[in-house]
This record gives sequence, structure tokens and C-alpha cells, in this order.
Amino acid sequence: MKIISLGAHDVRFPTSRDLDGSDAMNPDPDYSAAYVVLRADNGLEGHGFTFTIGRGNEVCRAAIDALAPFVVGQPVDDLGEFARRLTHDSQIRWLGPEKGVVHLAAAALINAAWDLAGKAAGKPVWRLLADMSPQQIVDLVDWRYLSDALTPAEALGILEAARPSAGERIAFLETHGYPAYTTSPGWLGYSDEKLVSLAVAAVDEGYRMIKLKVGDNLDDDIRRMRLARAAVGDGIRIAVDANQRWDVAQAVEWMTALAPYQPWWIEEPTSPDDVLGHAAIRRQLHPAGIRVATGEHVQNRIVFKQLLQAEAVDVVQIDACRVAGVNENVAILLLAAKFGRPVCPHAGGVGLCELVQHLSMFDFVAVSGSLTDRSIEYVDHLHEHFLDPVVIRDGAYQVPTAPGFSAEIHPSTLQHFSYPGGPAWI
Amino acid sequence: MKIISLGAHDVRFPTSRDLDGSDAMNPDPDYSAAYVVLRADNGLEGHGFTFTIGRGNEVCRAAIDALAPFVVGQPVDDLGEFARRLTHDSQIRWLGPEKGVVHLAAAALINAAWDLAGKAAGKPVWRLLADMSPQQIVDLVDWRYLSDALTPAEALGILEAARPSAGERIAFLETHGYPAYTTSPGWLGYSDEKLVSLAVAAVDEGYRMIKLKVGDNLDDDIRRMRLARAAVGDGIRIAVDANQRWDVAQAVEWMTALAPYQPWWIEEPTSPDDVLGHAAIRRQLHPAGIRVATGEHVQNRIVFKQLLQAEAVDVVQIDACRVAGVNENVAILLLAAKFGRPVCPHAGGVGLCELVQHLSMFDFVAVSGSLTDRSIEYVDHLHEHFLDPVVIRDGAYQVPTAPGFSAEIHPSTLQHFSYPGGPAWI
Repeated sequence: MKIISLGAHDVRFPTSRDLDGSDAMNPDPDYSAAYVVLRADNGLEGHGFTFTIGRGNEVCRAAIDALAPFVVGQPVDDLGEFARRLTHDSQIRWLGPEKGVVHLAAAALINAAWDLAGKAAGKPVWRLLADMSPQQIVDLVDWRYLSDALTPAEALGILEAARPSAGERIAFLETHGYPAYTTSPGWLGYSDEKLVSLAVAAVDEGYRMIKLKVGDNLDDDIRRMRLARAAVGDGIRIAVDANQRWDVAQAVEWMTALAPYQPWWIEEPTSPDDVLGHAAIRRQLHPAGIRVATGEHVQNRIVFKQLLQAEAVDVVQIDACRVAGVNENVAILLLAAKFGRPVCPHAGGVGLCELVQHLSMFDFVAVSGSLTDRSIEYVDHLHEHFLDPVVIRDGAYQVPTAPGFSAEIHPSTLQHFSYPGGPAWI
Repeated sequence: MKIISLGAHDVRFPTSRDLDGSDAMNPDPDYSAAYVVLRADNGLEGHGFTFTIGRGNEVCRAAIDALAPFVVGQPVDDLGEFARRLTHDSQIRWLGPEKGVVHLAAAALINAAWDLAGKAAGKPVWRLLADMSPQQIVDLVDWRYLSDALTPAEALGILEAARPSAGERIAFLETHGYPAYTTSPGWLGYSDEKLVSLAVAAVDEGYRMIKLKVGDNLDDDIRRMRLARAAVGDGIRIAVDANQRWDVAQAVEWMTALAPYQPWWIEEPTSPDDVLGHAAIRRQLHPAGIRVATGEHVQNRIVFKQLLQAEAVDVVQIDACRVAGVNENVAILLLAAKFGRPVCPHAGGVGLCELVQHLSMFDFVAVSGSLTDRSIEYVDHLHEHFLDPVVIRDGAYQVPTAPGFSAEIHPSTLQHFSYPGGPAWI
């Protein structure tokens, strides 16, 4: 299979008008996608995207154009080689390396290639991955900079150990789905009444964990956390998310004030770049039973490696589009398994739920083999724009069955929300 | 002063045709600048740029366009506020945060604002900075994420301690300049003969340190290092630079093989994101007397903070355009002073020598107060394109005296090397 053309779209949803997605660092996001369509010489299409929150989405699109020569006219059968080709051009690498805009663009293209591969194989991507041999999976990964924490041989061992019981876990997923938690009640822009009613509704719908945004005002956070705990009772986990708002000491102080309400984890307490800062926060919050989670803004496998080496996180939060797509996320799943940490993906935004369900299901079937303390974030926004939207039942993601990566957006949506010329913006 | 317009240029020099700048990770760079001109309402112009090595320079230009609304029509008198405005838009921040393409673009604009400020004050930027009060300098910095390593009060103390003797150091610089080392002999694409003759010439010209690129082939590196050591003798320092080529164990092994030739430092032994990797390499190379240096690709103050906290580097290498310009480099100089590490800037490329001389001279006068083990990289390429090029005498940068940041490129160069339409490219 060879790619014969690449189409790129700047798609933006005016979500800031309703304060959906508002948090302490992102008061007015317009959920957006730099969206690509790869056309193959056999007539198939691969769709993929990276997620942004509005301004600058056009810069990701420019980076996609810069990577186009490494895609158009090129083969796409070896997805390990394909991904490395997109991250190792020496001149473009200078702009990262392997981080920020150029990495977001690589994610869109690599994810699109996986959508294409799933369609070509007639399988959803989670199943395509799970059906690969351990050696094929190892060969997907760019091993550079990982050998002090995980070698290909160790990864092979992890995958081979999981393999004999993979069929049982596939059957389990097909019956029960994969656990979800929901962030829908907890946006910072919502009123107390909306918070409480959405929290109660979430429990009624079968969720075992909800998440609240924190970090703007401590008194507000204490009040919201108290209301939420009273609404859901002690048996439901409440995670909180500061979206990088604090320095180290402030994170410890703030979370200590929230400790009486038993937060399950504090997510992004400080800069995603600050491995040592997260480690210091974790050490100090450990006695209060508060876990540390991060990852949605962690730039690549090298920083995830260090978060694990430094014992800086209890929970690894992969993002489908921040790192270089499926391939780099496979590396991160293997690292997390080696260090015995659960992976609970970041989702929401536009289409992130659709993508990460595949990665978590693959993780359960072929890598970690476990659901303990694992769940995928779920936010009930914008799914109606996808051809194969996620299905949640009883607080669990149901297995996707359509071939591909569930990444495809309706053509009418691409047109309506096209920025800046689409009807939604004029 | 208010900015009334912003012009952006994509300028590229076809340096790959001569293998200037070739190293183990960057075999064929075309030195490039995403170049901006800010026009102020008083008729003055501020020039600035970020440096890339070719492909993708247009993505930096797109990011500059995305930041334009935070510049055009806006005041530029408070340069601390100006810099923070460019790095804290919540939607654009999502693309980093504070790293990669959006940070390179912020660097170009912030550096241009400093060029403007220097011209408005009638001073070169190093002197404009050195003449500020300690509190004014502290106010330039974005302190978020730094307080676990350095507080504004500690920074004030460092600056106040240096202040009484600043005049003596200014007089010293005006007489002797600031020490330089040269990378010109050591590009990987050069023949042994060219290496030896350029190394000998460098010593004759007064340099006390040269640098060689390594990391492509160990036998070649041993031979080149032996030839260079024989050519310059034991009294001249030879630094080596692997440009991120190795994993941790390989870095230790390779450098152990080069140890008999007394390399002064190993630069970028592994990923610039790998704080813990650098720390492990440093621990293992310390017995052999080999220092670890890094920084030209270190994305922001948060990673520099950790490199210092983890004792991962002996030498801090700032880059004028990788982090968010002068302001973030002031933060990094203060961090290095707090942790007692020398700063030896990365330079070369296009115009990096012109910019960093100002930062090192400010460091000497107002922050570290020391020249011990400090020197600025010098590469003799492309200076002829600048209105106020660096002046090197007896292996030292002579103080720039023209108002501004020495950043301005001749209009004829901007036109000739414009990409893709300029005469140099068609």
C-alpha cells in the first residue's frame, strides 16, 4: 500500500461559548482538530488528527504540510518504519526534537496511517495491534533513548507473558467493555447546582469515578469537593485535575487542604516538563493517600520514561495525539508495564475518546493484562461528529468493531466547522 | 512605545552544499532564520529571529503569524509583561506548553523587542540589561515553576551581590572581551587534513578551546581526537559534541574510549529531554574527569532547573533562540548562578554568536561575576550578513557597542536568501 495524496483540514468547534472544557489554565478552549485524510493507491482512506484548543491549530496544519513529503508517494506497510520516518528527518527534528507542534503533526499522520491499516486489515485498531506477534509489536517502537529503562528484549518478555491469556481478556472486553470515568460534571465554569446534578447523574449511569477541575480558587475547590463528595458518597472515586496550575509547594499545600474529601488522584499538579517536581509532590502527598497522575501534556516517551524512573507518578496518562501516535504510545504502555504503573488515558476534546479506547483495550489484552485501577476518561462532547463514535454502557467503553481507528469525522462536520470559512464561524 | 506592524521572513542559507555544520544527527543542515521586523510607533525597528536548519522554517513563520495579535497594536515598554503575553495565551500554550515551534516563534519576537528596546535606549542589549536594577531584572522573569529551585528573593540577592563590582567587570570586558572557543575545525564532514590545519590555526588565533563533533563512528572519533590532541598539545581544551546521538550506556562506553585524549566536556551525549539520563552519564564519567554539557536543545527554564537540581550537567549551554528569548535566558542565568555552574552558550548557526555575546556579557557583569571555565562558542560562518557582526580578537568576543541586539541582517541578504523565491534558491 502506498499513499497517493494527503488532504489537511483545520476544524474548530466553538466550545468556548458554553464554557465546556473550562479549567484553571484553559478558560475558553475551542476544541479543534488538525485533521488529515491519507488516500492509498488501493482506494482506501486513512483519517487521523491531532487535537488543539483553537488558536494555533493552523500551525499544526502547517507542520503537517511540512511532513507531507515523507508521506505522499511513500509506502505505508511497515508502520514502525513509517513512524520513524516522520520523526527523524534531521532538519525538521531541529524544531523539537520530538515535541510540540511537529510532534502533534506527526501524531495526526501516524494515527491516520493506523486507521488505514485497520481498514485494510478489516479490523479495529485495538484488535489489529492485539493480533500482532510480540516481535512485530516491539518493532513498532523507536527504541532510541529508552535502553536505560527498558530494552526490546524486556518488552518482548512482557508481551510474551501476556499472550497465552489474551483470548480470555478479549472475551471479557466483548462482554463488559473497558471501565470509564467521567469529567463531564467537573468543569470549572459550571455552577454548584450543575456540578451536583451531573455528579449524581454520573453515578446513576454506572461510573465509579468522576473528576473535578481545581486550582483556580482554594475556597471554591473545597466547597465543590465537599459538595461532590456528599453527592456521590464514599464509594465513588473523585479525581481532581489542576491542569499545571501550581508550583511544587503550592501543589502540596492545596492538596493537603482537599485531603479530607479523599481525592483519588491529583492530575497535572505542575508543569508537565517537571519530572523532579512531580516526584517531590508525590513524596509529600503519599502519606495523605493522594496519588499523582500526569501525561496529557507529556511530550514524548523520554519524559514518560523519567516519570517512571523517578517514581514521580502513580498513574500514567497517555494522550492519543500529543506523542507520535500509536507507535510512541505502544512504547509508553510497555514502559508503564515494566514499572508496574496503571495507564489511564486522557480523553475528551475532539475524538480523543474515540482513539484512546483502542490503546487501552490493546494494553489490557496484550501488555498489562490488568484492569486494576485503570479507566479511560470520558467526556460527553462532540461524539456526534464521528462516523463510529464511542459507545458507553454502564460506565464502560464498549469494544469498537468497525475496521479502523474510529477517527473519521462526517464530511458535513468538516465543512460546517472548517476554520475560518465554515458556517459555524461566519 | 507601541508596535504598529510585524514583518516576517523565511531566510535560508544553502550551507548543506559544503557540509558546514555537519554532525552525527544533522548531516546536511541549511542554516535558516525565521526573521521578524517589528516597527514601533516612534519609527524605530526591532529585528529578531529564531534559528532552524532548513525544512520547517516555514512552520516557525506560521507560529510567528499566530502570535502576531499579541504583538501588533500592543505596548512594548514592559518587556517582562511582553514576554509573558507571548507565552501564556491559553489556546496557543496547548501546542507546547513553552516548547518547540511556538517557543521558537516567541523567541524571535521577544528578541526583536529587546533589539528595539536597545535601540530606543541607545545601548547594546548587554549594557541595557546590566544597567537595570536588580528588581527590574527579577521582574523580567516568568517565575512559574521555579520556586522549588530559586525564588525571586534569592535571585535579587544574587544580583545585589554582583552589583557593587559591576563597573570593574565592564571595564575588563571593554579591554579584553569575553573568551571564545571555536567549533570551526570539528565538523564531521571535514577531512582529517582540514581538521588538523583548522585546529592549529585556531590555537594560532588565540583560542584556548576547540570542539569536535563525535558520535557517528568510534574508530573515526578516536583517530580524529588523537590527531586534534597531537595538533594542539595538552594546554588547549578539546570539547566534544555528540548531538544527542547516544543512549546512556553507549555514551559512557564511547566517552570512556575517548578519555585518553582528555576531552574537556561531552556535549549533548543523549536526548536533551533526558535529565536523569544526563545525570547517570555524568556520575559515570566523573572519575575520568570528563564534564557533561547540554542546553542548545533544552526547551525551557523548567528543564534547565531540573538539570541543575539533579546535578546532571557541569556546563549550562544556553541558546539565544530555543527558549523564549532574553527573558527566559535571564531566568536560566540566575538558576545557573544559584547552583554554581558556568554558562557557556551555544552559538554558530545564523546569528547565534551575535545574540549570545550580549547574554554572556550580562551574565559576567551582573549575575555570575566570573569568567572561570566560561567561554562562548564561536563559528566563523555567515557573519557577513549582519549589520553589526561579532568581532573576535585574540580568541575573545569584543564588546558590541551599537545600540540593539546585533540581530539585524542586511536587506540584500534577506532578499537574496529568501526561501523559496530568492536568487540563492532558484
